[in-house]
Amino acid sequence: MTKPKGFEKPSGVRDYVPYAVSKLRRIERDVLDCMSRWGYRQIMTPTMEYYDTVGVASSTSDRKLFKLLNNRGTTLVLRSDMTAPIARVVSSLLKEEPLPIRLSYHANVFRAIEEEAGREAEFFQTGVELVGDDSPEADAEVVALAIESLKAAGVSSFKIAMGHVGFLNGLFDEILPGSTEAQQSLKEGLLSRDFVGFRKTISELGVTDEQRNWLEGLLRLRGGQEICDQALELSGHPLARASISHLCKVWEVLEAYGVSEHVLIDLTMIGDFSYYTGMTFEGYASELGFPVCSGGRYNNLLKQFGRDVPATGFALKTNRILDGVNGVQEAAVLPVLVRYDAAHRKEGLAEAARLRAQGQSVVTLLIDGDHTGTDAPQPGATSQAYGEVITYGGSLG
Amino acid sequence: MTKPKGFEKPSGVRDYVPYAVSKLRRIERDVLDCMSRWGYRQIMTPTMEYYDTVGVASSTSDRKLFKLLNNRGTTLVLRSDMTAPIARVVSSLLKEEPLPIRLSYHANVFRAIEEEAGREAEFFQTGVELVGDDSPEADAEVVALAIESLKAAGVSSFKIAMGHVGFLNGLFDEILPGSTEAQQSLKEGLLSRDFVGFRKTISELGVTDEQRNWLEGLLRLRGGQEICDQALELSGHPLARASISHLCKVWEVLEAYGVSEHVLIDLTMIGDFSYYTGMTFEGYASELGFPVCSGGRYNNLLKQFGRDVPATGFALKTNRILDGVNGVQEAAVLPVLVRYDAAHRKEGLAEAARLRAQGQSVVTLLIDGDHTGTDAPQPGATSQAYGEVITYGGSLG
Repeated sequence: MTKPKGFEKPSGVRDYVPYAVSKLRRIERDVLDCMSRWGYRQIMTPTMEYYDTVGVASSTSDRKLFKLLNNRGTTLVLRSDMTAPIARVVSSLLKEEPLPIRLSYHANVFRAIEEEAGREAEFFQTGVELVGDDSPEADAEVVALAIESLKAAGVSSFKIAMGHVGFLNGLFDEILPGSTEAQQSLKEGLLSRDFVGFRKTISELGVTDEQRNWLEGLLRLRGGQEICDQALELSGHPLARASISHLCKVWEVLEAYGVSEHVLIDLTMIGDFSYYTGMTFEGYASELGFPVCSGGRYNNLLKQFGRDVPATGFALKTNRILDGVNGVQEAAVLPVLVRYDAAHRKEGLAEAARLRAQGQSVVTLLIDGDHTGTDAPQPGATSQAYGEVITYGGSLG
Repeated sequence: MTKPKGFEKPSGVRDYVPYAVSKLRRIERDVLDCMSRWGYRQIMTPTMEYYDTVGVASSTSDRKLFKLLNNRGTTLVLRSDMTAPIARVVSSLLKEEPLPIRLSYHANVFRAIEEEAGREAEFFQTGVELVGDDSPEADAEVVALAIESLKAAGVSSFKIAMGHVGFLNGLFDEILPGSTEAQQSLKEGLLSRDFVGFRKTISELGVTDEQRNWLEGLLRLRGGQEICDQALELSGHPLARASISHLCKVWEVLEAYGVSEHVLIDLTMIGDFSYYTGMTFEGYASELGFPVCSGGRYNNLLKQFGRDVPATGFALKTNRILDGVNGVQEAAVLPVLVRYDAAHRKEGLAEAARLRAQGQSVVTLLIDGDHTGTDAPQPGATSQAYGEVITYGGSLG
C-alpha cells in the first residue's frame, strides 16, 4: 500500500464545506424540531460501543463493523446505527422511566466500506425510537412521523412502502414448511428487490404449479388498502393472517392521520429480516433513485440489553436527502466588511460590535496592518465575497 | 478481561440524556451563531483520518490517538482535534479560496484515555481557525472572539491568560544556550503549571544565582500591560523581544475591542509548545477548576499539508462548560397529551396536528387500545410528565 499524501482523507468519508454544512444543519434542525413537536426528546450516545454488546446486537453484519481496541484490550466498534445504542440506554440510564419512551437523534454512523464504489463509510441518520408500545397505533405514529419528517427535510414528493415481516414468515412456512434454506433464498431475493432472481429461485425450488402461483402472487401484493383483502385470500396461516390484520389497523390509523395518500402497502417489503419482527417500511423520493428513510418494529432487541419491551422506529437517510434535495439553499448572506486604519481601530471595532449585536455577520480588517500571508481584500476586489464595505479612517478616502 | 455486560458502555465515554442534550445543543447553537456573526463559516470533517497525515500532524501524542485499520490495511485515527483536519481541508478542497479564511466547527474529538481517572475519551470542542493572517490584529480577533464565545456559552466570570511561546524560547536560549534537555524540563514544568517542580528543576540545573533569579522571575510575569515592560527588562534576546512586542500589539487591539479587562498577560503560559509558534492563551472560569478554552498561533502546521500559510485559532472545551455552567437550563415545557378513543381518533389526531403546527409538543394516546408492554398514562397519574391533557371520546367522561 502507498503512503497517503498530506492532503488526502480516507476513502468513503467526506468533508462538508460551509455551503453543505448550512444545508445539513438546516435539515437537522427542521427534522429534530418536527420530532420534538411529536413529543420525542433528543438523546446522544458515544461514537464507540463495546463490540460484544451493541456491536453484536446491531443490524449490521460483522464484516461491516469498524473495530478497534481500547487500551485495556477490549474490542470496540464505531456505532453502525443508533437503534442498538438507544436500546442500551433505555435498559440502563432510563430503566426507571415509565413507558412509552419517545427518543429522537441526529447522529453519524459508520459502516466499513463495501467493495462497490460509492458506499459511504460515515454518514448521518436522523430518527426516532418509540419504546414500550406494541400497538398498531404506535406503528402508525412512526410512519406518520416519518412522513412529516421527510416534509420537514424538504423532500417534496415521496412514497412510503409498508410491509410486514410476519406475513412473509407465515406464508413461507405454509408453502415451504421446514425448508429453511429455500425460505432464506426467497427472503434474500425480496430484500435485495431482485424480483427476477426471486422468480428464478421459485422455479428452482421444484414446487407445484399451485405453490408457484402463490409465491409469484406475492409480487402483485403492492397497492392500497385492497391489498390486505387479497393477502388474506392468499394465506390461511395464523401468523400471516395476524400480521395482515395488524397492518390493516395501521392503515386505518394512517387514514385518520390523513397521510395514507403517501403510503403504499407492499408485502414484498421485508426490511432487514434478521432484525425486524413486525411492520417494516421504506420511503422513496420520486426525484431520487434510492430509499430516503427506513424503519419498522423490532420487539426482540431490547431484551438483549435486559429490558424486554417492544419498540418501533425509523431513521431518515440524511446524507441522501442532503445530496438529492434541491431548493433548500438558504439565501447566502454576505458578511459586512468593516475596514479601519490604526487610528480608527476603536471606532471600527465598535461599529462591528454594533452590527453583530443586530445579528449581522461582520468581518473586520486593519487596512494598513502587516497581514503577512494574507491576500488582503482591496476596495473593489471581487475575489472576496463581502457585502457592504464600511471604512473608518481618513487615509482611505 | 471480563466480557462487558449487556447494558455497559466503554469507559471514558458518556450518554447524554435529553436534559443534557438540550443544554449541549443550546451552547452549540449560541456559540456557533456568535462565530457566524464574526464571519466564521462552519465546516465538518470526517471522524476518521489517515494516521500518516492528520494523525501525525495533530498536537496529540501518539499513545493518545485511537487507531484502527480500514479494510485496505491502512492505519486510521479517530480525530483528536479539529485543527489538523481543517488544515488539510484548507490545503485541498479550499486551496483556491483567497486568504484570510475564517472557519468554525462544533465536533466530537477522541483521546485514548489516560490512566488518571476522569479523563474523557470522547468530548466536544467548539472553535474557530483564522487562516492566512499573521498580524497581531488576527491574534487579538481570536482572543476577543473566544471571550464573546464564552459569554455566549453562558460562562459568566472568566479570565483569559495570554502568553507567547517565542518569549520563553528566546529567554531559555539566552540563559541556557544549547541545553535542550534543561529547556525541555523547564517547559514541561510550565506546561503542567507545576511551579514547585519548575523551581526544583531550576535548582538542579546548577545555574548561577543571577540565572536562577532570571528564571524564577518568570513566575512573576503575570498581570496587565505592565508585564510587557517588565519582560523587556528581563531579556535582551531578539526572539524574546520580538515576541513581547507582538504581544503588546495584541493587547492594544484587545483594548480597542474593550475586552482587556478579561485578559491577563501570563508569560508562564506556554500552551502545547510542540505545536504553537506564537501567542497562546487559556481561559479559566472562576466557578470551574480547569481551563474552559485554549488557543494560539500555529504557523508551521499548514505547510505539512502543502499550503504554507500562518494560522491562529481556539477551541472551547464544550463538555467542561456543559458540566460546570449553571443557569442555562431551559424552561422544561411539558408536552400536551391528546387522548382519544377509537371512535374519535380522527378528531384527536387533527387536534394534535393543529397544536403541533402552532409549535407545541404533543403526545397522542389511544385510551382503549391494546398497548402491550406500555405503562399507559392514566388520567391523574403523576409518573408521566405531561402538561395539559385533552380528551376526545364520550366513554372517558
